[in-house]
Amino acid sequence: MTKQVKVLAFDVFGTVVDWHGSIAAEVRKLKLPVDPDAFATAWRTGYKPAMARVRSGELPWTKIDDLHRLILNDILKDFQVNALSEPQIRDLNLVWHRLTPWADTVAGLTRLKSKFIIVTLSNGNLGLLAEMAKNAGLPWDLILSAEVFRHYKPDPETYLGVADIFDVTPDQVMLVAAHKDDLVSAQACGLQTAFIERPKEFGPQVVREDLQREEFTTYHAKDLNELAAQLGC
Amino acid sequence: MTKQVKVLAFDVFGTVVDWHGSIAAEVRKLKLPVDPDAFATAWRTGYKPAMARVRSGELPWTKIDDLHRLILNDILKDFQVNALSEPQIRDLNLVWHRLTPWADTVAGLTRLKSKFIIVTLSNGNLGLLAEMAKNAGLPWDLILSAEVFRHYKPDPETYLGVADIFDVTPDQVMLVAAHKDDLVSAQACGLQTAFIERPKEFGPQVVREDLQREEFTTYHAKDLNELAAQLGC
Repeated sequence: MTKQVKVLAFDVFGTVVDWHGSIAAEVRKLKLPVDPDAFATAWRTGYKPAMARVRSGELPWTKIDDLHRLILNDILKDFQVNALSEPQIRDLNLVWHRLTPWADTVAGLTRLKSKFIIVTLSNGNLGLLAEMAKNAGLPWDLILSAEVFRHYKPDPETYLGVADIFDVTPDQVMLVAAHKDDLVSAQACGLQTAFIERPKEFGPQVVREDLQREEFTTYHAKDLNELAAQLGC
Repeated sequence: MTKQVKVLAFDVFGTVVDWHGSIAAEVRKLKLPVDPDAFATAWRTGYKPAMARVRSGELPWTKIDDLHRLILNDILKDFQVNALSEPQIRDLNLVWHRLTPWADTVAGLTRLKSKFIIVTLSNGNLGLLAEMAKNAGLPWDLILSAEVFRHYKPDPETYLGVADIFDVTPDQVMLVAAHKDDLVSAQACGLQTAFIERPKEFGPQVVREDLQREEFTTYHAKDLNELAAQLGC
């Protein structure tokens, strides 16, 4: 490490919470006539293209709750789900506020919080992230979102924005994420990086083949407890 | 109440933390050759005029840490304090990150959090509020700041911004504050209001004469525990 890290900034969807398992479980509970895993995958697959429309300027600033709803409208058509009322669709869209943490998340974050400032750096909107934290007991020191910076990751304004908010240099911030493209972008802005293996992120049927340690990450851990141990917490 | 309140938004300086007592104590510890109470008062007195320069457009967006520093430079001159080094001045400026809560604050917030989403709505910047919460153990669900809205209170964008973030109507948000001008502005935007008496806000020598109950506030309480009891927490 060149400088002492002060702030750990966490990617959220997939790194901290299990979006696939949470959505599939909710779809199963609703007894929708669809494959719950395929439905969860389809919803998430629409996410990056939707943000790309905002990043390119094709859409004005649109928060993730609203992008999730646009995608949901499409996939309900694709999966030929016609039985849901408008209030039911609205409630289903809020499943993203109710995502459940991985088994190590709360304990790991609590350990890391003892030594570092722990913040989110998520494309999820502030209301979504606040309700998720309240539901799941996530002990953030600060919830930061693309909504604060009016830029979605991987725009540099997001990674550099964290350093600016705490008046530290970029290398005093470490991005913690389960996605290598996010880490590469953070590193290009001068942040330190920690990769977390999340083998089940894409559901029980998908074997992730990108979990190997990379030269370019500062830390590599199986979960947040292991990261806490590596960082001396 | 017309609608059920979902979000309590708290003013911070004076309502949640004791800025006067904290600053006077730190000035006393530094053994500066000044009256600690007068110094604290002078620093805070520069606050609204400094924000007014941003609100009017005379200054570009400037965060409170930087406005505090501009005011501090002036009052160090006025009080003829010449003995501090640049790192000492920088550290003194961060006293606002270390303000201590009133005796009822942590218990009261914890009770209120059991039934409501509790957020800050402060002109303090995000880094300041996050470090204050970490130091003082303030259990916010979300830290919101003028910095998020790029508008200082009492601009309507701040009060209405809270409702927008949680996708609720303005009357589902209640501003909790020890300052009637803040509550009047919030109410003009349709928020509900709770006044908290903070008789010692301006230090031991100042008797506040504006603590009486007003017709226009929805709630009026001696402290946050009393508000929690009034709201059934």
